[in-house]
Amino acid sequence: MSTIEEALEEAAAGSATPEFVDAGVRRARAWLSRAVEPGTVDLWRYVEDVGPVDAVRRLRSGTAPAGIRSLAGPRVEQDESLIDLRRAERCGARLVVPEDDEWPALPLHALTVAAVQEPADRKDQTERTQALVPPMALWVRGNVCLDQVIDRSVGVVGSRASTAYGEHVAGELGHQLGERGWTVVSGGAFGIDGAAHRGALAAGAPTVAVLSCGVDRPYPAGNGALFHRIAETGLLVSEWPPGCAPLKHRFLVRNRLIAALTRGTVVVEAAARSGAQATANRAQKLGRPVLVVPGPVTSALSVGCHELLRDEAFGATLVTSAAQVIEAVGSIGSDLADPVARSSSPRDGLSDLAVRVLDACPVRIGVAPERLAAIAGCDVLDVLRVLPALELADLVQWTGTGWRLAPPPTPSGAAS
Amino acid sequence: MSTIEEALEEAAAGSATPEFVDAGVRRARAWLSRAVEPGTVDLWRYVEDVGPVDAVRRLRSGTAPAGIRSLAGPRVEQDESLIDLRRAERCGARLVVPEDDEWPALPLHALTVAAVQEPADRKDQTERTQALVPPMALWVRGNVCLDQVIDRSVGVVGSRASTAYGEHVAGELGHQLGERGWTVVSGGAFGIDGAAHRGALAAGAPTVAVLSCGVDRPYPAGNGALFHRIAETGLLVSEWPPGCAPLKHRFLVRNRLIAALTRGTVVVEAAARSGAQATANRAQKLGRPVLVVPGPVTSALSVGCHELLRDEAFGATLVTSAAQVIEAVGSIGSDLADPVARSSSPRDGLSDLAVRVLDACPVRIGVAPERLAAIAGCDVLDVLRVLPALELADLVQWTGTGWRLAPPPTPSGAAS
Repeated sequence: MSTIEEALEEAAAGSATPEFVDAGVRRARAWLSRAVEPGTVDLWRYVEDVGPVDAVRRLRSGTAPAGIRSLAGPRVEQDESLIDLRRAERCGARLVVPEDDEWPALPLHALTVAAVQEPADRKDQTERTQALVPPMALWVRGNVCLDQVIDRSVGVVGSRASTAYGEHVAGELGHQLGERGWTVVSGGAFGIDGAAHRGALAAGAPTVAVLSCGVDRPYPAGNGALFHRIAETGLLVSEWPPGCAPLKHRFLVRNRLIAALTRGTVVVEAAARSGAQATANRAQKLGRPVLVVPGPVTSALSVGCHELLRDEAFGATLVTSAAQVIEAVGSIGSDLADPVARSSSPRDGLSDLAVRVLDACPVRIGVAPERLAAIAGCDVLDVLRVLPALELADLVQWTGTGWRLAPPPTPSGAAS
Repeated sequence: MSTIEEALEEAAAGSATPEFVDAGVRRARAWLSRAVEPGTVDLWRYVEDVGPVDAVRRLRSGTAPAGIRSLAGPRVEQDESLIDLRRAERCGARLVVPEDDEWPALPLHALTVAAVQEPADRKDQTERTQALVPPMALWVRGNVCLDQVIDRSVGVVGSRASTAYGEHVAGELGHQLGERGWTVVSGGAFGIDGAAHRGALAAGAPTVAVLSCGVDRPYPAGNGALFHRIAETGLLVSEWPPGCAPLKHRFLVRNRLIAALTRGTVVVEAAARSGAQATANRAQKLGRPVLVVPGPVTSALSVGCHELLRDEAFGATLVTSAAQVIEAVGSIGSDLADPVARSSSPRDGLSDLAVRVLDACPVRIGVAPERLAAIAGCDVLDVLRVLPALELADLVQWTGTGWRLAPPPTPSGAAS
C-alpha cells in the first residue's frame, strides 16, 4: 500500500491518465475529508489557495501554517485515505471531488459565496456547526450521477419523533414530488425523513439521503432496508469517509448540505427546537425558499413549523401540497400550482336584487310577485324583472298560482 | 297606537325629555331598520343628509327622491316600528341608535369611512352584500353596555361544519380570551361560532352574538340554550328588527358587523369557499388584523385558512394561541405574547471545540485526552482546555483512568 506522499509524488510525475481527474487530487481530498472536520472555513480557504495536493503535502510535512495544522490536530499523523477509498469501492461508493464533472458546482456555489464572506480572524467567524462552507469532497454511494439527480430536487426535512399526520404528509409529498420528476433529498432519519424517502421510492423516483456518517454504515441501522433501496436507484451522500460515526455535531454540519444541494427546503413537522428549523435557517441564509407545512396548533410537533411561519422577516411560505412546493421552487410559468378547487353554486353571479328575491321565495306554496316584493323589500317591477333569470337558472318555479323555490337538483347518479 | 307620523310630530313638538335621545329619532330608525335592507349605502347617505326623522317623513309622504323611495319598495306603506319596539321590550331588548351614548361610534367609524368612498352612481357601487356601510341602528338584547362590552373584543369565526379539532381550538381561544378580559364576538352559528361563545361563557366572560335575524328568535333554534346564556351576561345584536328571518343574503351583510365591531378577526376553520373567509375579507378591508389558525393540510376545513395565509398581499397572520391573538390586536407593549417555551440543554452555548470533545467521549470506559483529541480532530492541549468546563457542567466525568460521558441527570422527582 502506497503512502499518501508516494501517491501524490506519482500523480505529480504524470502517471494519471489525463482524461480522468488526477488520482493525486482524489487521494488528497480523501485524506482531507478525514483529517479535518467538514465545515472548517480556514481549511477550505487554504485548499482553495494552494490546491488539495499541496495542502496535504504541507500539512503532512509540517510546512503548513500553524493555524492550519492545528485544525487537524493528531489526525495529521494518520493516513487512511487509501483504505477509505477501497472501503468505499467495496460498498459501491466513490469519492466525488470538485474537480469532477458530476460535482454539483452550481447549487454548491451558494456555499462558496457564503464562505468567502467569512471574516479572516477565527474569533469573528461563524461557529463551524453553523458555518456555510463548501464540502471538501463527497462520498457517494449509488449508480446515478450526483449533479443530475439533484438538478431538480427539494429537501424534505422534519422531526424524527413525528406523528402519523406528519408521516402521512411527508410520504404524500415525497410520492407526488417523485411522480412529477423531482428528487426528494433528506437525511435518512426516522420519522419525516424516512417517510419522504419512502414516498419517493414508491413513486419509482430516485431519492438522495445526505448522511452525517460513512455511506458504508448509514445511520440509523433500523433504516437499513430503506438505505439499501435508496442506494439502488438514488444516492447516499456524505462528507465523512467510510466508517465514520454519526456524532451529534455532525448532524448540524450536514444540514447545510441538504439546504445547499436543493432548490428549496420543505419542513413537514418540527418541534420548538429542532434540527429541521436549523436546516430551514441554512436554506434561508442561502437564499433558497423555505416551505413549511402547517399542522394542528394542538400538536407539539408543529410548533416549530408555526414559529417559522409567524416570523415575517424570515419569509417562509406555507405549503399544503406538492404542487405548491413545485410552484415555489420550480421555473416561473412551467410549474404553477392549480388553484384550490372550489365548488360553484348557481347563486354565483346573481345580483343583490336577485338574491333577495330568491331568498324571499317560499319552499312549498307559491306566492305572488307583490308578496315577494314586500318580503325582499324592493319594487314589484324589480321582482318581475329578475324572476325570468331565476327560473332559467332552475332556482325558482311557477306553481300555476305563484312562485316558489325550485326543488334542489337530483344528484346525477340517482337517475340510473 | 300612534302612527309613526303622529309620533314624529309629537317628538318634534318637544314632548321628549331632553336627557334622552329624541323618541322620534328612535322610532324613525326602528322604522328604517325594517323598511330598507341594511347595507344600503344610498339610504345611509340620505339619512346622514336629512336626518332620520325627516328621512322617514319624506319616504312616507312620497317627497323623498324616487331613487331612495325605490329602496324600500312596498315596505314604505307598512309601519311596524311601534310593534317592533314593543316586541323588543318584551324579550329584554332595546334599540341602540347612533345618537345614543352606548353606540360604538369609534369601531364603526371605519364603516363610515368606507361608505363615504362609495361612488355616487348606483351602478358603480359595491354589491350591497359586500358593501361596507354603517348600520342604521342595532337591536340589542342583554343587560350590558354595547360600547363597553366590545371595547376590547375579538371576532372568532369559522365553519358551521367544523371538526372536533376546530371546535376544541375555538373553545380554548374563547376561554382564554375571556379569562384575559377580552370579549369574543361571533355569529352564534353551529360549529366554530358556538364553540367560541361557549368557551367565553365557561370563563365567566361576556360574549356577543351578532345575528342576521331578530334578537327575539335567534337562529339556529338548536343553539337556543346558548343564546339564552349569552343574553344573560353578554349581548345578542342584530340590524334586523324582531321577527326577521335569517335569510341567506343577510349573513353576508351581517359579517361586516363582526369585522367592524372588533379589533381583529380570528378564523379558526374555513373551507375553500366560506363565510368565514368573507368576514376575514371585510376585516382586512377595514384595516383590522386578520388572524388565522392553521390546521392539518389533510383537512378540508382548513383549506380556506391556509389559502388566507398563503396570500401574501392579504397579510393575514398565523396564530396558535389566545396570547398571540391578543398580541396582534392589543396595545403595543402591554399585550405581548410570551415566546414559545423551549427546553434548554446543557450543550447550549458550548463552543464547537467543546461539542466535538464531548461527542468524542465514550459512554462507559474512560479514555485518555490524547485519544479524545484524535477522535475530535483537535490538539491535546485544546482537549485539556475544555475538559474542566465540561466536567463543571456535569457533561463528562473522570473515571480514575480516563474521561467518559457523565450519566444523564436523574429526574428530580425520582429522588423522593
